[in-house]
Amino acid sequence: MLHRAIGIFDSGVGGLTVFKEIMRALPREDLIYLGDTARVPYGTKSAETVRRYALEAGAFLVDQGVKVLVVACNTASAVALPALRERFRLPVIGVIEPGARRAAQSRSGRIGVIGTEGTIASGRYEDAIRSFLPEASVCSTACPLLVPLAEEGWAEHAVAHLVADEYLARFKQRQIDTLVLGCTHYPLLRKVLQGVVGDDVTLVDSAEQTAEAVRELFAEQGLARPDGGGQRTFFVTDVPDRFVRVGEPFLGQALGRVTQVRIEG
Amino acid sequence: MLHRAIGIFDSGVGGLTVFKEIMRALPREDLIYLGDTARVPYGTKSAETVRRYALEAGAFLVDQGVKVLVVACNTASAVALPALRERFRLPVIGVIEPGARRAAQSRSGRIGVIGTEGTIASGRYEDAIRSFLPEASVCSTACPLLVPLAEEGWAEHAVAHLVADEYLARFKQRQIDTLVLGCTHYPLLRKVLQGVVGDDVTLVDSAEQTAEAVRELFAEQGLARPDGGGQRTFFVTDVPDRFVRVGEPFLGQALGRVTQVRIEG
Repeated sequence: MLHRAIGIFDSGVGGLTVFKEIMRALPREDLIYLGDTARVPYGTKSAETVRRYALEAGAFLVDQGVKVLVVACNTASAVALPALRERFRLPVIGVIEPGARRAAQSRSGRIGVIGTEGTIASGRYEDAIRSFLPEASVCSTACPLLVPLAEEGWAEHAVAHLVADEYLARFKQRQIDTLVLGCTHYPLLRKVLQGVVGDDVTLVDSAEQTAEAVRELFAEQGLARPDGGGQRTFFVTDVPDRFVRVGEPFLGQALGRVTQVRIEG
Repeated sequence: MLHRAIGIFDSGVGGLTVFKEIMRALPREDLIYLGDTARVPYGTKSAETVRRYALEAGAFLVDQGVKVLVVACNTASAVALPALRERFRLPVIGVIEPGARRAAQSRSGRIGVIGTEGTIASGRYEDAIRSFLPEASVCSTACPLLVPLAEEGWAEHAVAHLVADEYLARFKQRQIDTLVLGCTHYPLLRKVLQGVVGDDVTLVDSAEQTAEAVRELFAEQGLARPDGGGQRTFFVTDVPDRFVRVGEPFLGQALGRVTQVRIEG
């Protein structure tokens, strides 16, 4: 059991930012990644459809014999966790609760959340933050253009500044002290986002927090691999070319072999 | 046979610009639209995957008893027409040949093409333009950010100007006299695009050209409906909410009832 891999899934390349942090936090573990690139993105799709896709992705990874399932996609974490936990008999960790827990350390309690349309519409970050900090004043906004900007490699382009300025204007007025990057693509835009909200605002990267949550779970439940390991395996549902090309900046290193699979049921 | 509908499919809302032109050109015809919103976009996906999706969409419309199949999506037109024509025994019209034919009326022969990653990578516009105008000098560039800008409703925002400026800079240097809008979303950005390339450049909207091609086909083959008709039916593969909200500016009027269906095989 301990020698089994950690399964991580996302709609596409974005979850590689979570993969990278888990790799850092738990270097001895085997990791299996699944990017549902044939149906990406999830952020503009309905909760019902994202739930169906997440269950198919989960089933694929469970079939690979993983010991824990990490939902690296914020949108899937927002709408599919209860369904995944009901369907599969293994620990399922999403990215929202870890990010919300960190955000709840806000001093002023004025917290901003940015994410996809699906994540923001779900209200899951607000709920999770208020479960840790009931008096929090949470303001959320969907930022659909940030994902394509990150994928286009324009993370530091003048366009990114202008777009971030427009999306984040309301947060500046509300004097937030914490901004949750509620989408796996946003860490690539960290520099621009920090520039717009100012250095006094703490940016919460769910990727780092989620890796920490996995490490805590492993410590509590004695799930950590005692020796060897460190294998990384990548699966995608479309042909791998674009995933490899766009994904490497997200992982921060070369991806190696990526295998195409069919998961739709 | 003449009373059968025209089937039109697209990856999402974009094809509504083609639907609108067909509705104008052939107001008596019944039209059935299918938007594959559960798997949108096609433009960033591989030719292999888009072909599979196009065949499933085509099969759905053929099952509805349509008399002709219009592929309103540029990416699907670029990579799936031969497969669709082989599979189905009815006329299949894509958006690329009609647009290319119009572009080939260029005086200088210096033509620009913009589209999705998939459309541009296929080289289909260049091939089609050269089949009409062998000495044409065609320059193409993928513009991934234009689709999300149009869907965000930022078609006339300062960001749209800046993005168009960046993408179209090479066309200005090459002194094109014709620019093909090789994606169904781009007509919404017509004002910004025209502003960037200048009023001397002719913008070719494949939607208008495709409607004209359908009308010509009907005239040649005697396929036009003699009386009645004018019914419009919309199907989508995800829940309809977002399609209705984002789609109305593309159609330029209210959509009415939209029905969710499953098409994956």
